[in-house]
Amino acid sequence: MSDMGLHNELAATVMARCDLLAMLSEEEGRLTRRSFTPALRRANDQVAIWMRAAGMDVREDAIGSLVGHYPADRSGASTLLLGSHLDSVRDAGRYDGPLGVLVGLAAVERLHHAGSRLPFAVDLAAFADEEGVRFGAACLGSAVAAGRPLDPALLALQDADGITLDEAIRAFGGNPALLAAAARRPTDLLGYVEVHIEQGPLLEAQGQPLGVVTAIQGATRATLRFEGTAGHAGTVPMELRRDALCAAAELVLAVEAVARATPGLVATVGQLSVHPGASNVIPGAASLSLDLRHPDDTTHLAAVAALRVRAEQIAAGRAVGLTWDQRPSGAAVPMAPALRERLARAVVAAGHTPVELSSGAGHDAGVMARVTDSAMLFVRCAGGVSHNPAEAVDVADVAAAIAALGHFIDVLAAA
Amino acid sequence: MSDMGLHNELAATVMARCDLLAMLSEEEGRLTRRSFTPALRRANDQVAIWMRAAGMDVREDAIGSLVGHYPADRSGASTLLLGSHLDSVRDAGRYDGPLGVLVGLAAVERLHHAGSRLPFAVDLAAFADEEGVRFGAACLGSAVAAGRPLDPALLALQDADGITLDEAIRAFGGNPALLAAAARRPTDLLGYVEVHIEQGPLLEAQGQPLGVVTAIQGATRATLRFEGTAGHAGTVPMELRRDALCAAAELVLAVEAVARATPGLVATVGQLSVHPGASNVIPGAASLSLDLRHPDDTTHLAAVAALRVRAEQIAAGRAVGLTWDQRPSGAAVPMAPALRERLARAVVAAGHTPVELSSGAGHDAGVMARVTDSAMLFVRCAGGVSHNPAEAVDVADVAAAIAALGHFIDVLAAA
Repeated sequence: MSDMGLHNELAATVMARCDLLAMLSEEEGRLTRRSFTPALRRANDQVAIWMRAAGMDVREDAIGSLVGHYPADRSGASTLLLGSHLDSVRDAGRYDGPLGVLVGLAAVERLHHAGSRLPFAVDLAAFADEEGVRFGAACLGSAVAAGRPLDPALLALQDADGITLDEAIRAFGGNPALLAAAARRPTDLLGYVEVHIEQGPLLEAQGQPLGVVTAIQGATRATLRFEGTAGHAGTVPMELRRDALCAAAELVLAVEAVARATPGLVATVGQLSVHPGASNVIPGAASLSLDLRHPDDTTHLAAVAALRVRAEQIAAGRAVGLTWDQRPSGAAVPMAPALRERLARAVVAAGHTPVELSSGAGHDAGVMARVTDSAMLFVRCAGGVSHNPAEAVDVADVAAAIAALGHFIDVLAAA
Repeated sequence: MSDMGLHNELAATVMARCDLLAMLSEEEGRLTRRSFTPALRRANDQVAIWMRAAGMDVREDAIGSLVGHYPADRSGASTLLLGSHLDSVRDAGRYDGPLGVLVGLAAVERLHHAGSRLPFAVDLAAFADEEGVRFGAACLGSAVAAGRPLDPALLALQDADGITLDEAIRAFGGNPALLAAAARRPTDLLGYVEVHIEQGPLLEAQGQPLGVVTAIQGATRATLRFEGTAGHAGTVPMELRRDALCAAAELVLAVEAVARATPGLVATVGQLSVHPGASNVIPGAASLSLDLRHPDDTTHLAAVAALRVRAEQIAAGRAVGLTWDQRPSGAAVPMAPALRERLARAVVAAGHTPVELSSGAGHDAGVMARVTDSAMLFVRCAGGVSHNPAEAVDVADVAAAIAALGHFIDVLAAA
């Protein structure tokens, strides 16, 4: 079979497997597979079967991350770690997470079918709890693999049913007491590579199937509240009003204007609530969320500072109060230049033009980058839609990702 | 006792009675006295006692409006109708409604103490359900008195506990089958005069205790919805967004700008909700309320039309959808010029400068004006605050209102 024929066949298998995993859900009629649930247990078990069939040794670590191990051609070799996740948000699409695990699996199957052993082992991880929807803390599986100490308070977090993270990990078969010991040794790792759908529209806009991620963007999240004076909508003249919603509306447009004027910046007001919220009452207070991301920390923090000044100007100009409650900003995480360049060359070898882009969403690669060279290969998705049942990828693009990851591994093995 | 001494004494009684009525509430610790409740029953019964002590015959009509009748000096005489209401919003102030009933009562007491009979009867109405908070339909008592046919669907309206308006009227002692027969005969009426707190800040700003209402403002209420595209706050670039909240924010500021540029116009966005409403999701839809009022219908409707055009421009400019759901506009209700002039002269006779102003809030006078000459006397309230426990009036201003209403009645009797 030609390489292209093989890649197409492997891609068709990946698509069929994504369809099958999409049926393993907590909820009838839609895909919801949160961390440590019976649905995720079935998904881990199913992928473990496929891993074993691809010649891998399979285990779960202390937090329940599934890890397949494809041995090297020698003892004492280091390990290339591939990975992504199998947990999902509520009412999810079928590719966010599983695609990366299954394209990684396809790359191992390609080696296994050829009977190839490499001078390094290939490990494939399906990290536990990347999405963080159940306990409100994301990327826990990669944090454990990266040896980041887990705050004991984290294990006491409760889900909506009052089950603690500690209890959930135990019920899943893990052991919270052994989390620290589950860390990968950085000196054993060649690096970490994650394939993922883009979750954005840039690849589609550029007509290219594959992108190489430059950085996981830094992010700031804040909650703002403007405090004015409520009043009767029919009796208070305009010049005597202190309308909190008008202040908030000015800020919403300022957020948009700053982001439009700053290349690469995305800024979003996703929540806005008005108090008391009656049609015939002038808004006395308005609360809103701010989410701001940029691949460069200096630009990012300058934009946050500019918006804070603007919010204070708006509040002063309208004689309304302002509360600005900002969580610590997350710095951007650059991907490893050497791996980025190898991935880009592999995309070219697969017959495509690599698009360089940053990731606005967080990923396990952003955590693994703290301990080993890390890189991400993005796959075009329809309309940039994600976290939605309408999530869609093209089988030909999946074949391209399998081809590129294959080239990447081949070249690394020959180096 | 001098006139001024009498007016001060009557005003002190009005204030004490407002305090007493404020204790008749559905809720412990705050004033909530919705229509047809036991709390309103106690208020009607209390005011009936005071009415009888002032020489009035007392009855309740078929919808439960309390009516006191102070007879004329002759049979077959026509009737001057005074009135306001005793029902309240939730967590109300103590003057919105009761002040008008009790100042009207003070005017009758002044006649009764002097043993005066006039060439016309004086009726004093405490209209049922002016606020409309229980069933969502306001000014029902005055509608019945004005002989406006009540839609049968109205009687089937349910409150939050599933009790219909029909049941509530019966439980209060009224009879829904006799509503049509409860209409006042317009030919029997000399006119309708209502004293009410301003619920706005204009009298305070002008340093005057009393105002004469020119018109009840016309009002338009609409619900708007912008439909954009939800998306990941981290991955969709600014230039590819269709953010429904940004469109809504533009409209909020356009509403404010149009109102500021149009003398006498008040326009308010009191409600705004965002869907899906998550901090990391670009708003896919935003719904908002519009409340717009002006004493002149041409100006009012021109402003509504201009805002609708602006909303469509905003939607088109951002490629988002727009739904504009507008209820039929209420036309402005002018107060009767002859009564306005008499009231203004009476304010001057009471030693004050009458301020002409329109009413942004609706009142029973707006309903009674359909069948008889109607007028309103506004009393200054602190900070324009109303529908709020902080509602406050000065006893000296109440004395001024009693004096002006007394002059008005005296002059009418001498005419």
